Amino acid sequence: MSGSTLGHFFCVTNFGESHGPAIGCVIDGCPPGMALSEADIQPDLDRRKPGTSRHVTQRQEADQVQILSGVFEGKTTGTPIALLIQNTDQRSKDYANLLDTFRPGHADYTYWRKYGLRDPRGGGRASARLTAPMVAAGAVAKKWLHEKHGMRFEAWMAQLGEIEIPFESAEHIHANPFFAPNISIVPLLEATMDALRKSGDSVGAKIVCRARNVPPGLGEPLFDKLDADIAHVMMGINAVKGVEIGDGFAVVAQRGSEHGDELSAQGFASNHAGGVLGGISTGQDLIVTLAIKPTSSIRLPRQSIDRHNQPTSVETHGRHDPCVGIRAAPIAEAMLALVVMDHALRQRAQCGDVAIDVPAIPGHRA
Amino acid sequence: MSGSTLGHFFCVTNFGESHGPAIGCVIDGCPPGMALSEADIQPDLDRRKPGTSRHVTQRQEADQVQILSGVFEGKTTGTPIALLIQNTDQRSKDYANLLDTFRPGHADYTYWRKYGLRDPRGGGRASARLTAPMVAAGAVAKKWLHEKHGMRFEAWMAQLGEIEIPFESAEHIHANPFFAPNISIVPLLEATMDALRKSGDSVGAKIVCRARNVPPGLGEPLFDKLDADIAHVMMGINAVKGVEIGDGFAVVAQRGSEHGDELSAQGFASNHAGGVLGGISTGQDLIVTLAIKPTSSIRLPRQSIDRHNQPTSVETHGRHDPCVGIRAAPIAEAMLALVVMDHALRQRAQCGDVAIDVPAIPGHRA
Amino acid sequence: MSGSTLGHFFCVTNFGESHGPAIGCVIDGCPPGMALSEADIQPDLDRRKPGTSRHVTQRQEADQVQILSGVFEGKTTGTPIALLIQNTDQRSKDYANLLDTFRPGHADYTYWRKYGLRDPRGGGRASARLTAPMVAAGAVAKKWLHEKHGMRFEAWMAQLGEIEIPFESAEHIHANPFFAPNISIVPLLEATMDALRKSGDSVGAKIVCRARNVPPGLGEPLFDKLDADIAHVMMGINAVKGVEIGDGFAVVAQRGSEHGDELSAQGFASNHAGGVLGGISTGQDLIVTLAIKPTSSIRLPRQSIDRHNQPTSVETHGRHDPCVGIRAAPIAEAMLALVVMDHALRQRAQCGDVAIDVPAIPGHRA
Amino acid sequence: MSGSTLGHFFCVTNFGESHGPAIGCVIDGCPPGMALSEADIQPDLDRRKPGTSRHVTQRQEADQVQILSGVFEGKTTGTPIALLIQNTDQRSKDYANLLDTFRPGHADYTYWRKYGLRDPRGGGRASARLTAPMVAAGAVAKKWLHEKHGMRFEAWMAQLGEIEIPFESAEHIHANPFFAPNISIVPLLEATMDALRKSGDSVGAKIVCRARNVPPGLGEPLFDKLDADIAHVMMGINAVKGVEIGDGFAVVAQRGSEHGDELSAQGFASNHAGGVLGGISTGQDLIVTLAIKPTSSIRLPRQSIDRHNQPTSVETHGRHDPCVGIRAAPIAEAMLALVVMDHALRQRAQCGDVAIDVPAIPGHRA
Repeated sequence: MSGSTLGHFFCVTNFGESHGPAIGCVIDGCPPGMALSEADIQPDLDRRKPGTSRHVTQRQEADQVQILSGVFEGKTTGTPIALLIQNTDQRSKDYANLLDTFRPGHADYTYWRKYGLRDPRGGGRASARLTAPMVAAGAVAKKWLHEKHGMRFEAWMAQLGEIEIPFESAEHIHANPFFAPNISIVPLLEATMDALRKSGDSVGAKIVCRARNVPPGLGEPLFDKLDADIAHVMMGINAVKGVEIGDGFAVVAQRGSEHGDELSAQGFASNHAGGVLGGISTGQDLIVTLAIKPTSSIRLPRQSIDRHNQPTSVETHGRHDPCVGIRAAPIAEAMLALVVMDHALRQRAQCGDVAIDVPAIPGHRA
Repeated sequence: MSGSTLGHFFCVTNFGESHGPAIGCVIDGCPPGMALSEADIQPDLDRRKPGTSRHVTQRQEADQVQILSGVFEGKTTGTPIALLIQNTDQRSKDYANLLDTFRPGHADYTYWRKYGLRDPRGGGRASARLTAPMVAAGAVAKKWLHEKHGMRFEAWMAQLGEIEIPFESAEHIHANPFFAPNISIVPLLEATMDALRKSGDSVGAKIVCRARNVPPGLGEPLFDKLDADIAHVMMGINAVKGVEIGDGFAVVAQRGSEHGDELSAQGFASNHAGGVLGGISTGQDLIVTLAIKPTSSIRLPRQSIDRHNQPTSVETHGRHDPCVGIRAAPIAEAMLALVVMDHALRQRAQCGDVAIDVPAIPGHRA
Repeated sequence: MSGSTLGHFFCVTNFGESHGPAIGCVIDGCPPGMALSEADIQPDLDRRKPGTSRHVTQRQEADQVQILSGVFEGKTTGTPIALLIQNTDQRSKDYANLLDTFRPGHADYTYWRKYGLRDPRGGGRASARLTAPMVAAGAVAKKWLHEKHGMRFEAWMAQLGEIEIPFESAEHIHANPFFAPNISIVPLLEATMDALRKSGDSVGAKIVCRARNVPPGLGEPLFDKLDADIAHVMMGINAVKGVEIGDGFAVVAQRGSEHGDELSAQGFASNHAGGVLGGISTGQDLIVTLAIKPTSSIRLPRQSIDRHNQPTSVETHGRHDPCVGIRAAPIAEAMLALVVMDHALRQRAQCGDVAIDVPAIPGHRA
Repeated sequence: MSGSTLGHFFCVTNFGESHGPAIGCVIDGCPPGMALSEADIQPDLDRRKPGTSRHVTQRQEADQVQILSGVFEGKTTGTPIALLIQNTDQRSKDYANLLDTFRPGHADYTYWRKYGLRDPRGGGRASARLTAPMVAAGAVAKKWLHEKHGMRFEAWMAQLGEIEIPFESAEHIHANPFFAPNISIVPLLEATMDALRKSGDSVGAKIVCRARNVPPGLGEPLFDKLDADIAHVMMGINAVKGVEIGDGFAVVAQRGSEHGDELSAQGFASNHAGGVLGGISTGQDLIVTLAIKPTSSIRLPRQSIDRHNQPTSVETHGRHDPCVGIRAAPIAEAMLALVVMDHALRQRAQCGDVAIDVPAIPGHRA
């Protein structure tokens, strides 16, 4: 398959560019008979959409989703679900001067070398705007996984630049524009972002994503392990440079006697593994951590070259997120849900007849 | 596809268990006309094989590879290349007592929940022994990438437990059993490992993998980005819990003015990106870092349960690597080569006619 | 992959239902840099669209195609090309009474058994209307194959019911509403169709599709042989019940001394093979023949059952093609082009470096 | 995927050449917990193997299959099942003179043009010998489909050259070397074959394959329809030039009032459709018909060219089947079983929760 389709059975094909007429996706393989309407999808899109606070890009997009197919009388039919989102607030003039120039940290140079030409308007295909259809598709996956398995997905900001954000409560996540699980730290985050915008610079962030009520047994070794497929989609999110499952890089300095999660009839005693052993879900929470680089579009001047290898200086004005990590939480949730959904269908394809004579032990709850 | 085939064009299907009669793989899609014999593959297998020092498992396996098909008169024919490796030193009695017990940190519990039964001998399908066929397949990919693009792959240990290993020279890597790029630190590593074995515990490690002379333009957005596919295969390696591209988690605290690699006609001024922008190779070195957890098989007793949810204590004797990270370097090289190989073929499928009127700028050299 | 995506590298994902708001497809993997606009696609859609003569359905659809993505300043960018066609002439009332009834020869019963529910409006997903996006995608493939290889595709009606249609000239094909390569037989075909409509019955047809200037070497044994993939897409066209390559079923009674096409430096002496040997193109014309069943929607009453297994009688009124084969020619062309396009990209992925020291011998020209 | 892997969930990767050390396949995605041993597979291989009568090639191959992986204590584990068959009776000298020459009707020319080189020994990869691993894989699929759904597969010869073979009884099929469902016609078939061998020529055949007790609902529109996937594998079998489902090419002259199978609570009144409507199984028998061309290897001299486009005459001696159709029956059964198996797994992946409140109506029994 070419690169714009995700999944083996719950397949999402993404299309569009930042400043084209529309963006969207086609979901193929959705189980039939699930109640579905735009109202099930829009809330997740609204959490990701731009212009919701002064700390993100001021581009105004309603990101209203339209279902074009695959639903009849309010229920999925099992045929492809096409989702369309119109682009309404393009300002391509902001970018006209960048047609020839390669912005440091951006995909301008690589798209040009790969394809020989590129759509420079708003980053074209490389824009994070293309995560919107994935958030929409993720909402469909979340709904099925919740109805079928009671699953829940949530993601939050764990660090903004140098500021570590202690986890206070998941209830705080949606009570502030940073998806911070800690309301008391929000004033500090706001002050940091205000100063950052004034400076014309940008900053990175760390996001944690968690899935609860995960069925055990999901994942297809040797290569389509659940954690491998999670790493695949997470590293594929714009600006992500690192992915951890469970303890992640902390395992380097750990001892085996410390890391291996002990089991009892009451469940796992800990969750250093992050919910995956041997590439297969244990039934514990899935814990994934992402490192998101600072926005490449900044006002401060940077040195670069143009398409003729001539030196030039780049200052990026226009509308940008000073920290792309802020809006990454709903994206991470959606991508995790899409991976789990695909594996839930794959699992019953091969192992639909497996019957274990004892119940799954409860997953560890931190 | 089911989970034991890797790649879209250069496809490797892996089979076998740790203590079955044989392990191996089938490579489908290899370009025809390349000179190939077992002698091109065996050296990489020898670097990975067990029993080469007192710091790794003492299982004795020659890991002799046999080419069963796809080569005629010393050249690849373009048809599937089947590679077979006999298992010769199984000692299943070492594991017979584990049929009913779930070892903490191992895949015993998850394989059982997924499939309803499992081959417990030496970890069965979940054993790191199954990386041997991937190292063999990787050698084929490396040969083609070197002949076609002059590419080189090398991986080394950057940290053993708490001991950070400063990069001294790539020439040191193969001069010591730890794949350490620093010969002077080897006595410390040896002393650490000797103490660890006595203690009956295990430790984690950090591995860095680098590819040089990478063609620009490799990677298939939106989902099969080069870095996403690298993360996929790396997180899929046994015991890996974290993957970084370029600066990885350090980007969280970086500013955009610091992170974005500036360009000049002489090349990139730095390589914070690790050789990938927008999911497409820049032509710079690919830099990938892995976090490898401590071996789960340790002599120290751990609490667990059996298949009937009854509590039990587990002590793992027999033959194990006290640090699985030690043998991970050749595995990481092979997996990186397999991803790059697949993308090199995909790139010319879609973009074989793309002609850029200026040469690629040189990649940054650290 | 789920079933609504076709192709391995030139991938077309189809969506929509007969009476939904819109139908369309997403083409992923199209080579970049090719000039493309709606004007390149519309002519093929116009050849397939309904309402063009009294011998086909009177549903009025402009079938105007809109390019939503993947084209910048008139050239393909290598990113997904989304094509949208609005449905404008739905008359669902025509079908409301069929929600509970299974029409003989239709997919009503099987969709219901598979999915548990179905969209009955105009056949929903099972409608031949969903071939429109494939004709559009095929036009993109044809353009690239013509510009790159000089390929041409043409399909014609070889038999209508009992009436065999001798091949006179390809120039006649587009000079009559039956795609007959023989203008003198058209009055007979018209009289036959007029009588058929009066009778309330329908009839089958035989279609032949030919590709010229085919590059030799296309096809991926052992399973993705060129002829196997052609059979796959052709049998997948609505109402097709048989597929032949070259001499097809005539080979049963042939002798080897008669069938095998002899070669000379001037080319093949004949083309019994239909342009494929061992699943790989010879460079001769590809010759494919399709058997298309009579339309299942007829006015004559048929016996059937409803969703509760109760007997009922079905008479299908509304708007239908009395011979679906009439409009099948442009569809067959498009599907053949899509298969060849995918294989042209696959061929250069694996064999892009193959250099033969003698030119391909000319393909046999009938 | 490259071309040597078949299936989306139940994936079979085939490897080997006619005169290499071994041939085989890897089955990935087989459901776990099924009893399996070589004894379940060998009988189908024995039905296909050469040398069983004077009417087929005299090459002596035991075709003993060995299971290398995926089975533990007599049960499938859900991990890849590698099947190995040693080649024991190669006589490459028979073919040495053909390295430079392209045999009419063979894949010699096309493999050379595609790959730039080829293994000429016994046809190399293009040999029908590579169907042996598929027959082995098909036996695994048949076993699961029989245990799970009570399915049965059988294929027979319906025509040998000009001789039509009336269907007498399925019990006759295995009582004669021609797989003829009519024992009384066997003397005529034997006389025909004896005369044919003397003449040095070869002849075509028609094979019919039937599956019984097919679950309704199998098939994945729009492209992976059950009949489309059946056509794909059948046209991919060596020497097949035509495929029909149900009435096949007879539908061209049929009327809709004649073709559409009427339904009643007692089942379908007929089976013109061959068990598939809209690409989805109806629950009726699957009926597939194949046209198999006459063997290309004949003693009679044919005109051809060599790799330098120089004219030459070809006479093929050595060991060949004068009618490759004779051994095609077990191959067709296996390929049909592999397609149904893959779709059975795909069906429950997406539609595993579908519950219909009335039982499937019985399929029509001829």
